[in-house]
Amino acid sequence: MADEVKLFRTWSSPFALRIVWALKLKGIEFETIFEDLANKSSLLLQNNPVHKKVPVLVHNGKSVCESFVILEYIDETWTNGLPLLPKDPYERAEARFWAKFSDEKLWLSARGILFGVETEQAEARLQAIQNLQYLEEQLKGRKFFAGETIGFLDLAVGWMANLLSVLEEITGYVLIEEVKFPLLWKWMQDFSDVPVINESWPSRDKLVIKFQTMRDSYLAGKI
Amino acid sequence: MADEVKLFRTWSSPFALRIVWALKLKGIEFETIFEDLANKSSLLLQNNPVHKKVPVLVHNGKSVCESFVILEYIDETWTNGLPLLPKDPYERAEARFWAKFSDEKLWLSARGILFGVETEQAEARLQAIQNLQYLEEQLKGRKFFAGETIGFLDLAVGWMANLLSVLEEITGYVLIEEVKFPLLWKWMQDFSDVPVINESWPSRDKLVIKFQTMRDSYLAGKI
Repeated sequence: MADEVKLFRTWSSPFALRIVWALKLKGIEFETIFEDLANKSSLLLQNNPVHKKVPVLVHNGKSVCESFVILEYIDETWTNGLPLLPKDPYERAEARFWAKFSDEKLWLSARGILFGVETEQAEARLQAIQNLQYLEEQLKGRKFFAGETIGFLDLAVGWMANLLSVLEEITGYVLIEEVKFPLLWKWMQDFSDVPVINESWPSRDKLVIKFQTMRDSYLAGKI
Repeated sequence: MADEVKLFRTWSSPFALRIVWALKLKGIEFETIFEDLANKSSLLLQNNPVHKKVPVLVHNGKSVCESFVILEYIDETWTNGLPLLPKDPYERAEARFWAKFSDEKLWLSARGILFGVETEQAEARLQAIQNLQYLEEQLKGRKFFAGETIGFLDLAVGWMANLLSVLEEITGYVLIEEVKFPLLWKWMQDFSDVPVINESWPSRDKLVIKFQTMRDSYLAGKI
């Protein structure tokens, strides 16, 4: 029996994009179900009753939620093709550690920049720069975080490669400059040059509008 | 060369306790370094410069941080002895999903009960009960979350087996009653009956004093 693979996502979710990339990198055929989070489908609620969010992977009728959990599931289920995590337990631990770090610390500081004003925005920027310095360190001697090819951590932080520039356009803050973060700067180019990655980017114009609207609404509600 | 395994912990950290249990269940000898978080050792800061917190596992000089990352590292490094995660990718995904859920949702609602007053405490309690219902479901037909023996998710939510009663004593809210959560109630007994588990519990009296003091300080700062 052929595998039946479905992915619930939105057009813009950076967390869902990780799964799109992973499936494509592994050469797995899948059906995409686009969700409108303002009007969630009953199928989404049925497949992710706990968090009611995307991404959800449904494989032969069984659902897997949470993007890192899905990435590990994909890697352990489809062991042929590109491995996402390395074999060595210590390297696996490093990839998991930095992925979690990025989702918690870096993502939070990026949000702080997007939704902050004045002092809090400046503080979030300092935090973001400190967090990016940690990631810069991880790229020493490597093209991608996983080495010569893309892996788990590359997919985990892949959102940076286009969302940071969207953030920069909206807020005027430039985070990754070549002179300050040469390795991350080059990684952003190399990562974006991979066909599987760049063919899946959401429209940049639409992202700018989306995040600008989010910022405006948030600030309007705050004042 | 024999493995050199060191664990940085505190006497009370429920996250570090997971690692104590895992190492003991696997039969791995290790040295314990007790930290005072008010006066962190330079060795701790050196081994966990990013988060500066416990637990940290140092294996042959290499440090691993974040309790779930450490649990997976232990499972993948010492493959003899009790496996923490099952073999089946879907069951592994389930264990990881519920572990994450418990650390985010359940832990947060427990904190809300500890630090909340009146309405917010009542809301946190409702959340906690809803979260516990999800976990109750996971125990259907199983003695432990991992089946007949303790596994990853049991260690992840192991803190419930003593901290919930500490919370109950301090706040007067009883969360896990036999009549409402028969499976969780029985799991708490079965889990606590395992020698490796109960020989490692911190002193209950000290925990009550610690959390009572934390609650008092928090509320005093708030008023």
